[in-house]
Amino acid sequence: MAQIAITLAEIAEKIGATLVAKDDQLLVSGIATLELAESDQISFLANPSYRKQLVDTQAAAVILHPDLQEESPVPVLVMNNPYVGFAKLSQLFNNLPEQPIAIHPSAVIAESAELGEGVSIAANVVIGESVQIGAGSRIGANSVISDHSIVGDNCLLHANVVMYHDVVIGNNCILHSGCVLGADGFGFAPDAGNWVKIAQLGGVRLGDDVEVGANTTIDRGALGHTQIGNGVKLDDQIMIAHNVVIGDCCAIAATSGIAGSTILGKNCTIAGGVGIAGHLELTDGVHITGMTLVSKSIKEPGAYSSGTAIMPAKEWRKSATRFRQLDDMARRLKTLEKNQ
Amino acid sequence: MAQIAITLAEIAEKIGATLVAKDDQLLVSGIATLELAESDQISFLANPSYRKQLVDTQAAAVILHPDLQEESPVPVLVMNNPYVGFAKLSQLFNNLPEQPIAIHPSAVIAESAELGEGVSIAANVVIGESVQIGAGSRIGANSVISDHSIVGDNCLLHANVVMYHDVVIGNNCILHSGCVLGADGFGFAPDAGNWVKIAQLGGVRLGDDVEVGANTTIDRGALGHTQIGNGVKLDDQIMIAHNVVIGDCCAIAATSGIAGSTILGKNCTIAGGVGIAGHLELTDGVHITGMTLVSKSIKEPGAYSSGTAIMPAKEWRKSATRFRQLDDMARRLKTLEKNQ
Amino acid sequence: MAQIAITLAEIAEKIGATLVAKDDQLLVSGIATLELAESDQISFLANPSYRKQLVDTQAAAVILHPDLQEESPVPVLVMNNPYVGFAKLSQLFNNLPEQPIAIHPSAVIAESAELGEGVSIAANVVIGESVQIGAGSRIGANSVISDHSIVGDNCLLHANVVMYHDVVIGNNCILHSGCVLGADGFGFAPDAGNWVKIAQLGGVRLGDDVEVGANTTIDRGALGHTQIGNGVKLDDQIMIAHNVVIGDCCAIAATSGIAGSTILGKNCTIAGGVGIAGHLELTDGVHITGMTLVSKSIKEPGAYSSGTAIMPAKEWRKSATRFRQLDDMARRLKTLEKNQ
Repeated sequence: MAQIAITLAEIAEKIGATLVAKDDQLLVSGIATLELAESDQISFLANPSYRKQLVDTQAAAVILHPDLQEESPVPVLVMNNPYVGFAKLSQLFNNLPEQPIAIHPSAVIAESAELGEGVSIAANVVIGESVQIGAGSRIGANSVISDHSIVGDNCLLHANVVMYHDVVIGNNCILHSGCVLGADGFGFAPDAGNWVKIAQLGGVRLGDDVEVGANTTIDRGALGHTQIGNGVKLDDQIMIAHNVVIGDCCAIAATSGIAGSTILGKNCTIAGGVGIAGHLELTDGVHITGMTLVSKSIKEPGAYSSGTAIMPAKEWRKSATRFRQLDDMARRLKTLEKNQ
Repeated sequence: MAQIAITLAEIAEKIGATLVAKDDQLLVSGIATLELAESDQISFLANPSYRKQLVDTQAAAVILHPDLQEESPVPVLVMNNPYVGFAKLSQLFNNLPEQPIAIHPSAVIAESAELGEGVSIAANVVIGESVQIGAGSRIGANSVISDHSIVGDNCLLHANVVMYHDVVIGNNCILHSGCVLGADGFGFAPDAGNWVKIAQLGGVRLGDDVEVGANTTIDRGALGHTQIGNGVKLDDQIMIAHNVVIGDCCAIAATSGIAGSTILGKNCTIAGGVGIAGHLELTDGVHITGMTLVSKSIKEPGAYSSGTAIMPAKEWRKSATRFRQLDDMARRLKTLEKNQ
Repeated sequence: MAQIAITLAEIAEKIGATLVAKDDQLLVSGIATLELAESDQISFLANPSYRKQLVDTQAAAVILHPDLQEESPVPVLVMNNPYVGFAKLSQLFNNLPEQPIAIHPSAVIAESAELGEGVSIAANVVIGESVQIGAGSRIGANSVISDHSIVGDNCLLHANVVMYHDVVIGNNCILHSGCVLGADGFGFAPDAGNWVKIAQLGGVRLGDDVEVGANTTIDRGALGHTQIGNGVKLDDQIMIAHNVVIGDCCAIAATSGIAGSTILGKNCTIAGGVGIAGHLELTDGVHITGMTLVSKSIKEPGAYSSGTAIMPAKEWRKSATRFRQLDDMARRLKTLEKNQ
């Protein structure tokens, strides 16, 4: 892959840092950790626990908080939030192959579809009736966008993405491979031991700047839409059920699932493997730790957990057995206290 | 999308309700909740907790149980099971785009494949040797059906579905995007620190009226088939391992997994995030609550759970620490009782 | 499908067993359990709990440990590890349809891609710039391999697999449908309530003999690669986050997830539904039981668990309530002991 080389001066400007260096035209061609960085790579110090590695770093320059500026043996890119500096820097070195601004001849595109300027459609893409693709958006190979769906501007759909009909995504969204937006919500009416399907008549609505991980699924609404706010980040293998509403800038880690009609406030962070039951409401700023089952609404911001901590299996079996007897133990404890 | 409009009389006939209305030719064009319904939309009252919304509803008509018929301010569609009425009604307003009854020229279909009458094959579909597709079935874009597999009549495969070889599905099945039927079961023999692959020689068999959610996987059997009964409903992101047998009309919610050779009886309901260990047997009518680990067979119908309830993380850490000491606590409690 | 028939002598040679039989030219055409095997099928006894079925078996021959050789009423294939014998036998009867050694005309292959000898490319495959496919590898329909990625020799990619750019897999790997290798790791820097994307600059590296299940995702590294060792077996619906390192010959069951930068030693076995937090280190030979949350590093080999055992839901609710009071119970117990 082509090598990228950028001067320190250019980097400082693009990431919004103040450069402290003798040679602002020094060329750098990559990013690495403080420990591994070589003389043509930039590093950063965001986590204080790596501070001791600063003194020995071989990096061409380091992104640092002003308080640590004096400790660096190498040129410094000074910023109040070095981790954001690193994030912006990483984008400068992005090695994602460019997709040609063209419609691949193997793509199958309905005549009624409207493609904006600078759109790129890769091989074997299938685009349905009345679909709209915004300017600058790129659709990866073998993706399918069904009738009446809308992709905003500057979106990036990787290979093998599926958008069902009536799915609308905002600008600057990234959808990773294997994600499915708009499959039917899981709705059935019980009828004498059988299940009668409830047609899922709503759609899916994503705001701007949403990222959806690989093999994540967001189901369409039953009546009304499933809604994902602006700036929401979803990891891989997540399940968002019908009519869920996720507030702006929530981040949800992999393999979590949110059941139907649940509402998340803004700026919630949900760790991996979490399950959130249906028809609940979580306020803004809730943090759920890994593999927690959320079985009731949460009205106060803060961190919440369920489950037990890991143990050697042999000892765990004893605790698990005692867990079954907990109510009995509690009653016996009370009796002892009374008889004291 | 085209607007659908139906008379109340037609709706009553199609959902099996008794219409109580002055004007049975009133046209309605949608469905909404009691609270949101406008004068051209139908609503329903299935959950008693919404009963108080009935008196103020603006709906064109409401599907109601006979007991509540007198309370409605608007025309009534009377049924013993209003929720089933709603389900049937939703199907009348289904807005899934129609797929043309045709073979798209980009599809790659083996000469030995047999397609029934009225079959629809979308763009870029790949169909293998000796595959059979039943009458009226629709195969979505970019789906792949491998050699010797069989799709029943009136099935709907959405885009990007994969059926491996020797996978047989019944009539009226719905497979959502990204689901994979017939990948190899997870079988390996340990051999001095390495794993020797056990070829998975069985197939997958689905009954009639089965729905499989987006990105759900059903593995093929090792010897013999993995079997899914009639009327089974599987949500998204579910994993069904090799040689699992699922009884008729079970419903399983998203992100659950069932390990190899486990047998579920009929009419079981499995909530989301559940894990069921291998080689177990669950009788008919078992209900498993969310994120439960089922580690032994279940012989009595009823509801079962594991895990702990959600707490503020700070308090949870204390309980989790004590959980590790539970066996010790139980012994000390016993000692106190003895010494009493 | 074509019937396979093999003589006992040929089987003995191919699985490395000693044949004890009057007629070593007897033809067999399948495998079955001791109980179900018919006179043209081979069976095996690996699990002692099936020993009592041996005496009545109708199988053409049985794979047995030398110690049990005398108990067989039918010809015997003697091996020290009968389960490995069964595994090798199953491969002889593999019924996976052969894929023609050819490039399907509908495939879209960059001119700079290099295909080895005997490569098979199915319909609608898309292969990017500078991709290398090793000799004898087969790429299933509708799969996508992006720029600069490398597939080793004798690999099998089933339908609808996605490899992003800069993903390198070794020889003899099997990737099942819907798996995604190289999607972006979940990396964002918080910036005043918003998330700034960290471009994921690393790739994915798989060793030889790795199997990846259906709909499993392995994310690319942030800086440096996500690494999967030789002989690792991953089941379906697994999530491997960025910069995870998995040691040789680990086996991980379905729906488990491993968070970023965690390192697994060699020969670990992870059951289904397990979650492993990020930045941890597990030594060689660790076994994690189903649905355990691994929240700290593990330095000793052995089995580990978390969670609670399944109970009837009604009783479980009592234990779950008491779990919340555990710290209080422990303090009261201590007080009683003091006052004794």
